[in-house]
Amino acid sequence: MGEFDLIERYFKRPPQQAAVGIGDDCAVWSPRSGHQLAFSADMLVEGRHFLSTADPYRLGHKALAVNLSDLAACGATPQALLLSLSLPRVDETWLAGFSKGLFDLADAHGCELMGGDTTQGPLNIAITVMGDMPKGSAILRSGAQAGDDLYVSGHLGDARLALEAFRGSVSLPQAVFDMARLRMETPTPRIALGQSLRGIANAMADISDGLLGDLGHILKASRVGAEIELSLALPLMQTQPLWACPSDLAMTCVLSGGDDYELVFCAPPSAAEQVHKAAQASQTPVTRIGRITASKSLVILDPSGQHVTRHFRSFDHFA
Amino acid sequence: MGEFDLIERYFKRPPQQAAVGIGDDCAVWSPRSGHQLAFSADMLVEGRHFLSTADPYRLGHKALAVNLSDLAACGATPQALLLSLSLPRVDETWLAGFSKGLFDLADAHGCELMGGDTTQGPLNIAITVMGDMPKGSAILRSGAQAGDDLYVSGHLGDARLALEAFRGSVSLPQAVFDMARLRMETPTPRIALGQSLRGIANAMADISDGLLGDLGHILKASRVGAEIELSLALPLMQTQPLWACPSDLAMTCVLSGGDDYELVFCAPPSAAEQVHKAAQASQTPVTRIGRITASKSLVILDPSGQHVTRHFRSFDHFA
Repeated sequence: MGEFDLIERYFKRPPQQAAVGIGDDCAVWSPRSGHQLAFSADMLVEGRHFLSTADPYRLGHKALAVNLSDLAACGATPQALLLSLSLPRVDETWLAGFSKGLFDLADAHGCELMGGDTTQGPLNIAITVMGDMPKGSAILRSGAQAGDDLYVSGHLGDARLALEAFRGSVSLPQAVFDMARLRMETPTPRIALGQSLRGIANAMADISDGLLGDLGHILKASRVGAEIELSLALPLMQTQPLWACPSDLAMTCVLSGGDDYELVFCAPPSAAEQVHKAAQASQTPVTRIGRITASKSLVILDPSGQHVTRHFRSFDHFA
Repeated sequence: MGEFDLIERYFKRPPQQAAVGIGDDCAVWSPRSGHQLAFSADMLVEGRHFLSTADPYRLGHKALAVNLSDLAACGATPQALLLSLSLPRVDETWLAGFSKGLFDLADAHGCELMGGDTTQGPLNIAITVMGDMPKGSAILRSGAQAGDDLYVSGHLGDARLALEAFRGSVSLPQAVFDMARLRMETPTPRIALGQSLRGIANAMADISDGLLGDLGHILKASRVGAEIELSLALPLMQTQPLWACPSDLAMTCVLSGGDDYELVFCAPPSAAEQVHKAAQASQTPVTRIGRITASKSLVILDPSGQHVTRHFRSFDHFA
């Protein structure tokens, strides 16, 4: 099968919002008037972001999910994506699974595949997503205010737990492993929550490199600090009720886990009711885990209120 | 050097058109009102699109040039780009050269780097470019009309000649090799010409996989055929005056060469004067090489007017 047949069979569909979709030199699209564009790009490399044995359906889901998560973190509405794919060979079983995983998630969010590129080479999935939001309503990292409550969506740390199990550094009961693996392989981009928080959250980011690292970006951009209460954050592991996770491992997973694709955000205490309504409207669990401070340091408090002094590292591809 | 230092040192610059540039979850940008967006993505893989010995400055230029060429082919004005880069290691000499090559070309076209991704893995350069044009003015592949004159910009075939020399299938005089190599490594995206042809050209594409292949896309989309006159096309090799290129090799290079990044377009004979003015205004050579026909076949005429029956293949990554 040639390059153009491959695109035709697995990726080309009739244009919907696009004025011109796949098949010309460029895609052409008209953004909504009064709106700004938000866009982001993420690249997934075999052996680095996923194992060569990864299920292609889940991989198609995840490759798009990590990109949509960036749109969610700005409160944007997904509109379009471009897919650039480097493949070692044409494997139709893989392409069928991958494209279905990608399109199922894309369709769920009304995000149209409008273009991309296909080439031969080591397996590499590069996606660019585009979304929009009313002018001036993007939720940035730089708006956190001292005194804000600090929240996260959903669950934290389970993807890292699965990674530790794959690495062989921990042995998990089957039910725990299955749940953790599902979190690692099919993260849920919090699109609806992100949009619901426009005009409510002062700052927001998605958690891709670990809570401390990504919260750190907010603190740096906003020139503030934060306190995280471990007694509020540790129970956020979805696998927590299923087994007795050693507390050191739980801290590592929850605080510097990575691959969670949840949202971390802050809002003034006066907006607490609106935050809970946004959570309900988007059917997304939201938990307060601490607060923003004027101190410029990131402090972790154990259940007795003592500072935790252990050093946590967030993920860095070249560190 | 870590991932964030790398971005800071080589890629982050103060936002210009972007409302939010590099450093948040998404870039935020407001398109011009009354305009549509055009966007395209291209991925370059080491060993496939370039040799591991490629000069990093030229590679930075080329990675962006092949993307800008897609914008040129629609008549779009470049606005923004996103760069996703997979690197085996942090090589500061390489990064300095690559980023300078990329930014020099980006700056020349007012195209702002607004985001991207950096990760570790086999060398892979994935770029998405965005441009815009007044609503309804994109030049598509589907508008060719029987009777239109067929044109190409600039020079054809020299990049393929360089490739043949690298492969060892031909031995070139040094001056010929140097010129051909420059064409292969630093193609010129025909941005100004593309924009000048809005409202004049009926259909247009850029030549990345070879004249016959890319013209073929226009013919298929427009349901027409074409005649190419070899006596007009063969002299378009820039190296032609420098040596006696064997005519079989010249035909291969010019007709199915690939990597030219020139524009192939058609316009009614009544617009010939406007085409020449667009060429002058954009300081880009333009040559008529034949015409569009109602026949649905692509015919090549030798200088005596006979059909050339040799089979030419355009580039296909999986064929």
